[in-house]
Amino acid sequence: MLIADLETPALILDLAVLERNCAAMAERAKRHGVRLRPHIKTAKSAEVATIATRGQFGGLTVSTVAEAAYFAAHQFRDLTYGVGIAPNKIPALAAIQRKHDAVINIILDNVATATAASIAAEKEHSAFSVFIEIDTGGRRAGVDPEDSELLAVAKAVAESKSLKLAGVLSHAGHSYHARSVGEIRRIAEQERSGVVRAAQRITAAGLPCEIVSVGSTPTMVYAERLDGVNEIRPGVYTFFDLDQVGLGVCSEDDIAVSVVATVIGHNRRSNRILIDAGALALSKDLSASEFTKNVGYGLIRPVPGTVLPASNLFVADVSQEHGMIAAADDELPWDSLSIGAKVRILPNHACLTVAPFDRYYVDRGDGTAKVVWEKIRGW
Amino acid sequence: MLIADLETPALILDLAVLERNCAAMAERAKRHGVRLRPHIKTAKSAEVATIATRGQFGGLTVSTVAEAAYFAAHQFRDLTYGVGIAPNKIPALAAIQRKHDAVINIILDNVATATAASIAAEKEHSAFSVFIEIDTGGRRAGVDPEDSELLAVAKAVAESKSLKLAGVLSHAGHSYHARSVGEIRRIAEQERSGVVRAAQRITAAGLPCEIVSVGSTPTMVYAERLDGVNEIRPGVYTFFDLDQVGLGVCSEDDIAVSVVATVIGHNRRSNRILIDAGALALSKDLSASEFTKNVGYGLIRPVPGTVLPASNLFVADVSQEHGMIAAADDELPWDSLSIGAKVRILPNHACLTVAPFDRYYVDRGDGTAKVVWEKIRGW
Repeated sequence: MLIADLETPALILDLAVLERNCAAMAERAKRHGVRLRPHIKTAKSAEVATIATRGQFGGLTVSTVAEAAYFAAHQFRDLTYGVGIAPNKIPALAAIQRKHDAVINIILDNVATATAASIAAEKEHSAFSVFIEIDTGGRRAGVDPEDSELLAVAKAVAESKSLKLAGVLSHAGHSYHARSVGEIRRIAEQERSGVVRAAQRITAAGLPCEIVSVGSTPTMVYAERLDGVNEIRPGVYTFFDLDQVGLGVCSEDDIAVSVVATVIGHNRRSNRILIDAGALALSKDLSASEFTKNVGYGLIRPVPGTVLPASNLFVADVSQEHGMIAAADDELPWDSLSIGAKVRILPNHACLTVAPFDRYYVDRGDGTAKVVWEKIRGW
Repeated sequence: MLIADLETPALILDLAVLERNCAAMAERAKRHGVRLRPHIKTAKSAEVATIATRGQFGGLTVSTVAEAAYFAAHQFRDLTYGVGIAPNKIPALAAIQRKHDAVINIILDNVATATAASIAAEKEHSAFSVFIEIDTGGRRAGVDPEDSELLAVAKAVAESKSLKLAGVLSHAGHSYHARSVGEIRRIAEQERSGVVRAAQRITAAGLPCEIVSVGSTPTMVYAERLDGVNEIRPGVYTFFDLDQVGLGVCSEDDIAVSVVATVIGHNRRSNRILIDAGALALSKDLSASEFTKNVGYGLIRPVPGTVLPASNLFVADVSQEHGMIAAADDELPWDSLSIGAKVRILPNHACLTVAPFDRYYVDRGDGTAKVVWEKIRGW
């Protein structure tokens, strides 16, 4: 079957771009002398994980219990569950460790969680490797590197019989709002120095802190030095998206995933072309709008084997299963986008667009949809 | 298992509220003398469909091919696929009709689609019942009631051997942005008169137009008269949500679905409580913000059997699997929302929040999660 003949909406993945993105990040990791533990929440696919871990130690970062179970079942046995652990998830994670002889590293940033996780793990006759989450400026989760709580958490973990202190970890999420490459570089250095400082304080207190791990695609693309760090965990670089283009982290040619949709209507009164991909197929993420005008819920591009006379088309509005295409200059190519025509939509935020789909149709450059990769979703 | 012990994020459904909402809409349909064909894209569940069609003729409205296949397999054999048909979906829909002896009504608003659908249906040795979509002011899809295209479309459908003209249909989506009950009533009358006018023009041209169908929860709650209409297709009324509360269409007590999440962190520097429900579990829909301050990605409420000292908590920000709770007065109840505590999040837009989940935990008023209803999702 040709990609141009897929039933829509469908998710397609450009294999050559994926491989190039993964090779480039592996090269960066090598240059910095750090190991790469890709955050696979973006792709949620064992095939993508295999490509992303080529030449690496094989560890992954995951974001849900469902991902942990899926990747462990697909022979990925060293997983960091990269969301602050809810103690009630310990039984499910312990079961995955047992069933697949896997190691699931959990993350936490406070004594109450350390205590609850320790008790829950003990109840399961299980043990967990723990990373302490460090806030290096993102202001989402994590303990400040200078906070007295840091050593209290490290001590609580180190003293638990069912927990093992593996290291420290951060995610510089604020790099997603940087206004220049210079600012991304400053955030990368802030992340590096913050997490290294936290590790120094823990080891100075006589506690172990073997792994010093940082994340985020923008900071990993532009970091100038990673001294003291030995693991990186970027994720969206596997696919990239319009938000990363807007940030200056990649070019549009680096975007590996897009949604194929079909033209279902022409609304000349509102000057919109309707497609069958809406809020569920694209997500309501508007992140790229922070940097770019006329991007809406995604940019319109031709499907392989077709031509589109305009490059200024975007999804201006969505309802649940409808998308409304507008043109930046209000000149829509009605004839090219006739009823039944197919288009591709480049995503604002690949992680959210990809999430609800069950599979990728893999474009190997021949315009066919013969190769299908199933993926995990949900929780 | 208690709802308070569910692994999170989880979707819960209050059965008593669902039944009350469905009974109220059935009563409205009865009062207006119209049949009710619920739009089941909100719930995507056979059990909900059974309750929503109690005492009705059993027809449903669906929004995806996956829903059509699922509901046909669950004995719902009269389905209107309520998104302008993409001709490439005809083979899949024809297969569903054959396999389940079902009738799938398709909708379209232009001659090109009518022609393509006719050819595609003929190729499948199949026939489809067709509704012509009418734009009564929503400016999404549909032909204007006064447009000359209307009769051209009706003629194209009526002359096709594989299509049967069943009627006209509209969805007053602009009612979602009304600023008062009076405005919703005006839109309801605009919808009614527009679709009735379209039906009159078709029948005056000697063509059949048996069913005159209107939709949208706000207009169906407040419509004063539905003369000339014989079918209604509201959907979100089954569950309601914060957007409908903001519109004045329901009260918060009418919201039947919510997401249960667990507190995973306290960030006192940013004055946020972290939970394990983020952009994927809640959606990035911000619709309720059009009407209400401090609602963010959803309001925080207690889970059954627990107490929450504050009613002004909301999800102020989300990332993929993280939610950040803020308080309207910046006074967070840190002690009540300790690590591991559970909360419920009322959704902004139930359709989008519910979509990615695989199941409902049904709250029958006893605080347990013993009853589980599976649902369909995806495409």
